[in-house]
Amino acid sequence: QSSVTIYGTLDAGVSKKTGTTAAIGKRDNNKLGFKGVEDLGNGLKALFQLEIRYEPDTGTLESGTRPLFQGQSRVGLQGGFGTVRLGRGLTAFQESITAFEPWNGLPSVAGFQTDLQVAGYATAFGSGSDPLGPAGNSGNRMSNALFYNTPVFSGFQLNATLGTKENGGSASAIQGRNPVGTPAQYLVGSDASANPYSLSGTYNNGPFAAMAAYERNAVETKVWSVAASVVPVTGLKLMASYQKQDQEHTKPVNGETKSWVIGANYTTGPGKILAGYGQKTPDGVIKTKEISLGYEYNLSARSYVYIEASNRKQPAAGSTTVDTSVNFYGLGIHHNF
Amino acid sequence: QSSVTIYGTLDAGVSKKTGTTAAIGKRDNNKLGFKGVEDLGNGLKALFQLEIRYEPDTGTLESGTRPLFQGQSRVGLQGGFGTVRLGRGLTAFQESITAFEPWNGLPSVAGFQTDLQVAGYATAFGSGSDPLGPAGNSGNRMSNALFYNTPVFSGFQLNATLGTKENGGSASAIQGRNPVGTPAQYLVGSDASANPYSLSGTYNNGPFAAMAAYERNAVETKVWSVAASVVPVTGLKLMASYQKQDQEHTKPVNGETKSWVIGANYTTGPGKILAGYGQKTPDGVIKTKEISLGYEYNLSARSYVYIEASNRKQPAAGSTTVDTSVNFYGLGIHHNF
Amino acid sequence: QSSVTIYGTLDAGVSKKTGTTAAIGKRDNNKLGFKGVEDLGNGLKALFQLEIRYEPDTGTLESGTRPLFQGQSRVGLQGGFGTVRLGRGLTAFQESITAFEPWNGLPSVAGFQTDLQVAGYATAFGSGSDPLGPAGNSGNRMSNALFYNTPVFSGFQLNATLGTKENGGSASAIQGRNPVGTPAQYLVGSDASANPYSLSGTYNNGPFAAMAAYERNAVETKVWSVAASVVPVTGLKLMASYQKQDQEHTKPVNGETKSWVIGANYTTGPGKILAGYGQKTPDGVIKTKEISLGYEYNLSARSYVYIEASNRKQPAAGSTTVDTSVNFYGLGIHHNF
Repeated sequence: QSSVTIYGTLDAGVSKKTGTTAAIGKRDNNKLGFKGVEDLGNGLKALFQLEIRYEPDTGTLESGTRPLFQGQSRVGLQGGFGTVRLGRGLTAFQESITAFEPWNGLPSVAGFQTDLQVAGYATAFGSGSDPLGPAGNSGNRMSNALFYNTPVFSGFQLNATLGTKENGGSASAIQGRNPVGTPAQYLVGSDASANPYSLSGTYNNGPFAAMAAYERNAVETKVWSVAASVVPVTGLKLMASYQKQDQEHTKPVNGETKSWVIGANYTTGPGKILAGYGQKTPDGVIKTKEISLGYEYNLSARSYVYIEASNRKQPAAGSTTVDTSVNFYGLGIHHNF
Repeated sequence: QSSVTIYGTLDAGVSKKTGTTAAIGKRDNNKLGFKGVEDLGNGLKALFQLEIRYEPDTGTLESGTRPLFQGQSRVGLQGGFGTVRLGRGLTAFQESITAFEPWNGLPSVAGFQTDLQVAGYATAFGSGSDPLGPAGNSGNRMSNALFYNTPVFSGFQLNATLGTKENGGSASAIQGRNPVGTPAQYLVGSDASANPYSLSGTYNNGPFAAMAAYERNAVETKVWSVAASVVPVTGLKLMASYQKQDQEHTKPVNGETKSWVIGANYTTGPGKILAGYGQKTPDGVIKTKEISLGYEYNLSARSYVYIEASNRKQPAAGSTTVDTSVNFYGLGIHHNF
Repeated sequence: QSSVTIYGTLDAGVSKKTGTTAAIGKRDNNKLGFKGVEDLGNGLKALFQLEIRYEPDTGTLESGTRPLFQGQSRVGLQGGFGTVRLGRGLTAFQESITAFEPWNGLPSVAGFQTDLQVAGYATAFGSGSDPLGPAGNSGNRMSNALFYNTPVFSGFQLNATLGTKENGGSASAIQGRNPVGTPAQYLVGSDASANPYSLSGTYNNGPFAAMAAYERNAVETKVWSVAASVVPVTGLKLMASYQKQDQEHTKPVNGETKSWVIGANYTTGPGKILAGYGQKTPDGVIKTKEISLGYEYNLSARSYVYIEASNRKQPAAGSTTVDTSVNFYGLGIHHNF
């Protein structure tokens, strides 16, 4: 009955950001997971997966406050009909989009996923996939959800996530559509005003891949994205994505944010070069612009060392019209087990 | 030295209860455990077991607040004298009683264990096996305890749990025997007024099984139970239990609660039908009555899907004389690994 | 890819201390760890280790509040140059010193490590290796650190730990060098005033071993130690250590503490006798004196039972001139897996 595979990632490095002390931290999400597949016969399988997330520099759970199985806790069945799972995990939107980001969705400051590629969807208060979850909760997962992936047909796959209206434990009220100062629409412990859901379609055909995705969360913030990538010559992958977020349900003014990210990965021998540029433009606020360059050197199929740098021009604290420039440098080791 | 077995349960389903939104949650306790047995020679063995409990729908620890190893953390020795363990685990009373409950102790709303079969012992404030534990702690375990099980003699086994008087971290005072409004007998951080303990005797002989159990917790709430089951024809198990709880040490009036539960399990091919009925009668409060019906369909020895329904008539919120009717429906998948 | 070794310790016992109720608790740190080594070729290896610490009597994380991977969370490389790791772990000072303590660094009340052998370094408020960490954090580890161990040359090894100035989440201000009542030097969330670091050199040559170590933490408390041990006849190990702590940066008066510990271990057949004596003398406060005797009986290479007793004369609560005598008795089982 030893049906459990243990897996994980331990990534740690040294980094320096303009205006803060040198720090030891992470470039990737750090994981310790337990998973298994049981063959039920007739092409049917039972699946489970539990994934701890943690901070390598302090040993705490991710951000110190996230659920034990922040990564995912899902159980389900797989067969000719596709894969159906219940529990908590990345939404269809979020799990499809990372393949079109030059840092492959890594949460590094040099990466584009969290702040730019999803148009800041996961970071603004009351936003993200799980806005009625507890404080500190990751914004790109749904709890209390049903996850469905179709089989792959000629390179096409459809993915859907449907959440219940259950409040997941939010400890703060969230201002609804009403003007600022009027009563919040989502009191502490409120159920969602609509079932949150997330949809994506992906296409993979040799050197070409593309995606379209849409998500509406429990406080009716909406986000959509289209993205594509191409491999014009062996070792080189070019990619681009465009996103638009609509927060009009919870922001009385300036509820829209647009963003785009372009990038390239170039593999040469044991090395891989990563490069990207992106912009985010929230209504009424000046653009955030980021440019990043990184290099990974493989020590084995499971381990690599990396170095990276980025510059971000973003609105200065408290300002919508003046920007500030932040440089970031990182160096570290990434190990999968 | 790879002496560790990893095991667990991931159970998740969709449910709907009168008056609340549809929810994704659990029917069984969800576990991720680590255990091992070391042969010491001469029939002596060393045992350890550590069991994480978690919520599958949100990925948090059980109830969000329970100890990491809520299930158990115990180490001990097994030999001709029986089994002795130290740590935290289910009490003798609680581990013996579930075999006589038609949902086998599952915490599903359709089950009878938590609220009816132990006469509400684990749920009332200041009650349960571990009343001086931290808020949110499960009430049917003892921390800081010694666990002893005799060998089985001709079908008979005796089980005992003995706790220390240590306060386990309760964050609230608990009203003692004194009238309401007078000083609490158990201040925050108080030691127990008596050593908590739990005793059970079980008997298994082919188609017949029976049990008697008694427990007194750290605030001197007492509970006893007698139960029996019989298998009259292959595949059919009939069971019944009677319980009485005495909370007179911490409730100035109406300190007694009686309950009984009857049930049946019928196995036919890969399917199993579960049915039960029970009543609980606290002094001075109208009866709680519950009827439940469930069906499990085995996909393998480790995985099944289930559907279940129940109706409970219970005192309306704040009332001791008017009842309210709550329907519950559940559907899900249960996977052991 | 099953490259993960699961290991751990479950130790539980019964103890009694003057003035408190009998308790179930631990003598050793309880661990559940995950580690692995990957061979990268050319003598180079990648290493990772994640170690959960927990309380066996209640099933919680260590002390109820510590990080999930309190033991360590480190990743790094090992080769001809030695071992380099990043993350959180024991400092060079702390990992070297336990070999010269008769309880081998066990946190038992009968042991000398926490309170005496490191001159109380880890216990006073604002002290320990990680004083800017969150409340309840263990004081003998550094988070946000780089760890380096040289190879062993003719019995000599050097070890170094270098931390960043990052505040690890301290929730309290810490009084700096200024007199009491003037503003704290370390506000909540302050960075360190200097990079914390820790150095040790160890020497092992057959029956003789010795060590010297120095550490300065994030609030500039300093501690140094010299220690030695010898095995004059087979089975007998004698050891001694001397320590001095300087807290002048955060204590306006009486900032120095001196301590020494002597001890012996005697192995005979499956049994091992432990004995020790030590003193600690903080400036302006009477001595703490401890004497301890213990016996371990091996049931196997992985399991033993133990019994131990100690007497400690220490300043009475709130007094610097009157001492009080505390007896301690313990009995339990220790199991490695």
